[in-house]
Amino acid sequence: MNIRLYNARILTMERHKSIFEGEIWIKNEKIVCVVEEQELTSAWKKEDVPRIVWDLEIDCKKNLLMPGFKNAHTHSAMTFLRSFADDLPLQDWLQTKVFPMEAKLTYDDIYTMTKLAILEYVTSGITSIFDMYIMPDAVAEACLDTGMRCVLVSGLNNFTSSPEQMEEEYLKWNKRNSLISYQLGFHAEYTCSKELLCSVAQLAHKYKAPVYTHLAETVKEVEECKAKYGLTPAMFLDSLGMFEFGGGGFHCVHMTDEDMELFRRRRLHVITNAASNTKLASGIAPIAEYERRKIPVSIGTDGAASNNCLDMFREMFLVAGLSKLREQDAASLNAERVLRMATVHGAKAMRLGRADTLTKGKLADIIMIDLHQPNMQPVHNIRKNLVYSGSKSNVTMTIVNGKILYRNGEFNIGEDPERIYTKCDAIVNRMLSE
Amino acid sequence: MNIRLYNARILTMERHKSIFEGEIWIKNEKIVCVVEEQELTSAWKKEDVPRIVWDLEIDCKKNLLMPGFKNAHTHSAMTFLRSFADDLPLQDWLQTKVFPMEAKLTYDDIYTMTKLAILEYVTSGITSIFDMYIMPDAVAEACLDTGMRCVLVSGLNNFTSSPEQMEEEYLKWNKRNSLISYQLGFHAEYTCSKELLCSVAQLAHKYKAPVYTHLAETVKEVEECKAKYGLTPAMFLDSLGMFEFGGGGFHCVHMTDEDMELFRRRRLHVITNAASNTKLASGIAPIAEYERRKIPVSIGTDGAASNNCLDMFREMFLVAGLSKLREQDAASLNAERVLRMATVHGAKAMRLGRADTLTKGKLADIIMIDLHQPNMQPVHNIRKNLVYSGSKSNVTMTIVNGKILYRNGEFNIGEDPERIYTKCDAIVNRMLSE
Repeated sequence: MNIRLYNARILTMERHKSIFEGEIWIKNEKIVCVVEEQELTSAWKKEDVPRIVWDLEIDCKKNLLMPGFKNAHTHSAMTFLRSFADDLPLQDWLQTKVFPMEAKLTYDDIYTMTKLAILEYVTSGITSIFDMYIMPDAVAEACLDTGMRCVLVSGLNNFTSSPEQMEEEYLKWNKRNSLISYQLGFHAEYTCSKELLCSVAQLAHKYKAPVYTHLAETVKEVEECKAKYGLTPAMFLDSLGMFEFGGGGFHCVHMTDEDMELFRRRRLHVITNAASNTKLASGIAPIAEYERRKIPVSIGTDGAASNNCLDMFREMFLVAGLSKLREQDAASLNAERVLRMATVHGAKAMRLGRADTLTKGKLADIIMIDLHQPNMQPVHNIRKNLVYSGSKSNVTMTIVNGKILYRNGEFNIGEDPERIYTKCDAIVNRMLSE
Repeated sequence: MNIRLYNARILTMERHKSIFEGEIWIKNEKIVCVVEEQELTSAWKKEDVPRIVWDLEIDCKKNLLMPGFKNAHTHSAMTFLRSFADDLPLQDWLQTKVFPMEAKLTYDDIYTMTKLAILEYVTSGITSIFDMYIMPDAVAEACLDTGMRCVLVSGLNNFTSSPEQMEEEYLKWNKRNSLISYQLGFHAEYTCSKELLCSVAQLAHKYKAPVYTHLAETVKEVEECKAKYGLTPAMFLDSLGMFEFGGGGFHCVHMTDEDMELFRRRRLHVITNAASNTKLASGIAPIAEYERRKIPVSIGTDGAASNNCLDMFREMFLVAGLSKLREQDAASLNAERVLRMATVHGAKAMRLGRADTLTKGKLADIIMIDLHQPNMQPVHNIRKNLVYSGSKSNVTMTIVNGKILYRNGEFNIGEDPERIYTKCDAIVNRMLSE
């Protein structure tokens, strides 16, 4: 498909580039031209832009085009637990609600519940996800069938999967196609034996690959690791050689000076999950401190069991706001930084450098933000509007890999949403009756 | 207008009443019947329900009808400052940005900027506002012209308005019509002389009326009051006889035991503003503690200068989430309580008992929530969905005083939104060039 998006405001998220008025041209899965209004005539003439026959031309009516959000930590299929177990202490939530229900999940359940999450992602302008869950093949299949970009990360632990299975998945999903890739990972230090963790580290060395895991989410996790190994989770994992080729931690709420220094030295990514940490009362991550130390921070929604929605606008407001609360400084962490975390930094953490900015040659992961809604008026500052007053109701188009998956409230993901809702209901009812 | 809303799920917010399937009938500004599906036949026959000729019959398709949200603290016209002065320390924000711009506001500016806020309110399911701002007549005029329900509260201080003017407004707006009412109030202890405050207390006694004010928003405010008068703001104001007929405080972030005991004893309302307190780094209000003491809590968005959006869904998530963080307990403050704060408690604080629940005889302030969107699926628990994963994108209809102001993205407020946006732009440009 060749798509011309014209009469737009454009925020490319390239460094030091202001918002300008212009056009974006998409050819199949790629951006082939991003051009300012006043340079349009010469762009048309340029020899390196062949005369394209458009399948679709969209008048953006001076609304904003920007890179889609990168949801850098999620468990998509956990939509099946949305509003099923809230307002409970964390351990009750996990032990009496989440684990028993998860044990009943089939491959098809995960496939369908991931599709439900994808519907929600595209309404919130999310164009790629970093997904950790059991049976990643089911997640990948849902993403391929709908057109969502996904980086799978292994959730290996003592109870599910194995290093051999992870290696197999790693090799399979890193060659298959442009929508899916795969990173090494494991669930968390506290759900893996030392032996298992050593196997993961060995794979990291074998493939010179980064490793990702839940890290320092709660005080309890950190304290128990220190009691067991005499080290914080970050330092313990690094002592096994886990992070020699990079990677990162999901959550990173409770990090010591030494942990942070490790992250800085190894260029590890912090992936923060503000709503989840808030709702589960895990704490406020020291994001401003990470910024001061130049540790790259990106943003994830976490799964719907804890969050409970998959909405990057809520996350962005929380990341900025909670940092201001924690630092007791309204000037802490400005909107522009947070917007960068939700897009470019996320792409970097997920190794999606080909889909980070709106630049010629990059993959076409683009969203349109309706500025003609009351919450975006007046237009003093679009970036601050996005972070502080923006809402998924402003997302009027979501393009992934050059394909329009969502536009003006209509989905184009290969299946009728009502059918997906009905299937999800049936799954939940079956699980509750089992 | 006679409107029949059928095939709905209904959450009346009456105490101990479950969600049921049924219909709501509206005759002019009132609800004349709320009936469960299985009792429909007998309801039709009842003599006290005359055969109504419907102007409009709406199939709700099993979506949810519930009372509109009560935005119990806002400064609507401050939309003119949205995203104009963020990421600044609080005092800089106020002194160098907010005050100089406010000084340029005309009556017409306030009228138009309030209309912009009303557009936003109805998209978020807000059906009444408790509005404090200079020139309340302009706010009232905007509400009357659009059809929004508004309780004005005086923002009297040393620099604007006077007790005489407040008394005049109090008398004028409490008799005029069903959409507008007026409560006594003043901006804050720190912007009013003791003499002025005594005049307000005198009026409270004269009319046996409640009084509302900004209270204990920041540590600085509390400390300065203690230094000046030897009492916290709450205790100082009460010592002047301010709260003998009730009322309440906006914000109430930093309250002592004694302050809380005062609130409990006098049945004063806490009106919390979670997003504003977060973004301005003012702190987290002790909402769970208020609940333990049975102090009534309601919720407001505050103005767009600090928040920056007027969205009760974001507020509800924050009220619950921040309470969990503050108490370090994921079980603190459940969704059901928060939903009550955002509706029934708000109505009580605003003295809008006639518009609190979906009950026969009450004013028809009703919203429809689309459950057929991915963030509301599966439907384990509708109340928790509303608070934890709900979004204004789920609001598909907003009815105030029996009139549909918003439906499926279309506004019906007497003026084209684009015209309002254009006027707001012109106002902002004029102010910036002055």
